[in-house]
Amino acid sequence: MRATVIHGERDIRLEEVPHPQLSSGIDAIVRVTAACVCGSDLWPYRGVTPTDRPHRIGHEFIGVVEEVGDQVSKIKVGDFVIAPFYDCDMTCANCLNGVSTSCLHGGWWGQDDREGAFADGGQGEYVRVPHADGTLVATPSHPTPEQIPGVLTLSDVMGTGHHAALSAGVTTGSTVVVVGDGAVGLCAIIAAKRLGASRIVAMSRHADRQALARDFGATDIVESRGDEGVAAIKAMFDGIGADCVLECVGTEESMDQAIRSTRPGGMVGYVGVPNGGAELPIRRLFNTNVGVNGGVAPVRNYIEELLPEVLSGAIQPGKVFDLQLPLAEVAEAYAAMDERRATKVLLRP
Amino acid sequence: MRATVIHGERDIRLEEVPHPQLSSGIDAIVRVTAACVCGSDLWPYRGVTPTDRPHRIGHEFIGVVEEVGDQVSKIKVGDFVIAPFYDCDMTCANCLNGVSTSCLHGGWWGQDDREGAFADGGQGEYVRVPHADGTLVATPSHPTPEQIPGVLTLSDVMGTGHHAALSAGVTTGSTVVVVGDGAVGLCAIIAAKRLGASRIVAMSRHADRQALARDFGATDIVESRGDEGVAAIKAMFDGIGADCVLECVGTEESMDQAIRSTRPGGMVGYVGVPNGGAELPIRRLFNTNVGVNGGVAPVRNYIEELLPEVLSGAIQPGKVFDLQLPLAEVAEAYAAMDERRATKVLLRP
Repeated sequence: MRATVIHGERDIRLEEVPHPQLSSGIDAIVRVTAACVCGSDLWPYRGVTPTDRPHRIGHEFIGVVEEVGDQVSKIKVGDFVIAPFYDCDMTCANCLNGVSTSCLHGGWWGQDDREGAFADGGQGEYVRVPHADGTLVATPSHPTPEQIPGVLTLSDVMGTGHHAALSAGVTTGSTVVVVGDGAVGLCAIIAAKRLGASRIVAMSRHADRQALARDFGATDIVESRGDEGVAAIKAMFDGIGADCVLECVGTEESMDQAIRSTRPGGMVGYVGVPNGGAELPIRRLFNTNVGVNGGVAPVRNYIEELLPEVLSGAIQPGKVFDLQLPLAEVAEAYAAMDERRATKVLLRP
Repeated sequence: MRATVIHGERDIRLEEVPHPQLSSGIDAIVRVTAACVCGSDLWPYRGVTPTDRPHRIGHEFIGVVEEVGDQVSKIKVGDFVIAPFYDCDMTCANCLNGVSTSCLHGGWWGQDDREGAFADGGQGEYVRVPHADGTLVATPSHPTPEQIPGVLTLSDVMGTGHHAALSAGVTTGSTVVVVGDGAVGLCAIIAAKRLGASRIVAMSRHADRQALARDFGATDIVESRGDEGVAAIKAMFDGIGADCVLECVGTEESMDQAIRSTRPGGMVGYVGVPNGGAELPIRRLFNTNVGVNGGVAPVRNYIEELLPEVLSGAIQPGKVFDLQLPLAEVAEAYAAMDERRATKVLLRP
């Protein structure tokens, strides 16, 4: 089969690799019908994080179950399934606490130094899925072509935006600022609206993303950043800032923007993978009672809640995909995102 | 009148100073009947934070109103009042949001570079209280001598412990660890029990404080610290840590202890004044979804809720005072706390 392998900076290749095999009684083989490129895939692509040796890449995929291990009981051959961006058993203490990203037995796609088994990435034709009963969620029926993009966002970006909003404590009447207008930031707008936010400010400088942000529920757009951006946000909210600020980028600048845009006693919900050397400024947080909550989003725990709304069209996170390419053009998919020609690219094996 | 002035490291003096005068229509003069020394007063006492020039000190006091400005309407001459460790108007956006420590017009006792007016500290015979109607809470009647210590804790430590518990999200059934066995940590145990915690671990090495911790509701004591302390906590809670950890010290070591004792997806509620150079480790927090929330406690917002329970004896935070001295012995009060001969000292002018 064919799968995507990253060899180093800006070196993405589609290669012929061994077809995955069941290696335990609890795994499954999934034929991928749609996958995508994540903003976080751009860190190794850009060389910001090093690639020590070639390895599989991609962690967002949906598809059809082709084989299951003999101890798999919930997932059936022929099911259409959503995989979160990690595997998990959904039975350990952390999974039961709603934090499946900290599953005591799970791991990450493409990380092949676990269980002695080869770990597939999501940007390929097939994937061996460990802990199939925990990891995978079957849809009630096979999605229509129109439903596919939205369903695919439940692998990562929609659940991650939801986690940012939940972590910040967004509830009925909250005032919200979203820092970051990538796919996750845009999904965070959907999540904030869904949770009842009264006002949602999108910080964005791109006309097309601004339009999508408004379509998703943003009530205001702020283009400025840094001190000017903070001043603009404060001016909108009693001079003190917003109740909840969703940090969806992961840089030092974006976190600083988020913390300073939050009113005293408010909360930053952050899901951007921390990038750069800065830690969190405890004195500023202490003096203003601004909390920081969030992390790597346990999207598996959110799929059941969000799926019906995606299938019904009540929320339309699939609109974040503004380019679709065959898997054969995966290198172009990375380039398009790297060069900001696309917000998010859907790949079809 | 006499008031306490800090001149520098381990140089605390009771001096004759001018009697305070009303300087606006909205302030009041309070005759202090009880005051105390705070753990945070030990930072300048020990020279950890520098004292650039002599200034008044002390920020916890209760007493009787002697005079009020002509625009003061709620507080009356003769009222027995509790002052939080700062002044606030309780009408600005931050006060109404429950964060009166960020009052847009308030300030700190002993900080005399505000309004051009001299600012009294709390460890004196009289205090001019700005924003009297916002800052002060009158008790229903004058407290009995037995009620005085408990009422005094509402100036700071009981409300601060409560803030730690609220910030960590303690609720019915929560598992809780309290880092720090000073007056605030001990009050945090009371707060956690009152909010419904199912299990409360006090990290303490002092037999007398352990006994008080158990009296206040601690179900377990852990004496070890660092890696051993973390291992002990994890072993008590499914190998993953507690839901809520209350950081009531403020050192780098105590915050590290708190973060590592929290289960994935749990929350650190912190109220220890940050001391030392360390910032918050964002990657560890991100990877485990441990949130950090809290800060300088808005105790004014909590007085009305906690006062009835203090007056009835339902909670007994006044037990944290293990030494009472006349104001004339204020230097000895500092020394006793510095040398850990006392947990907290009550001063009677």
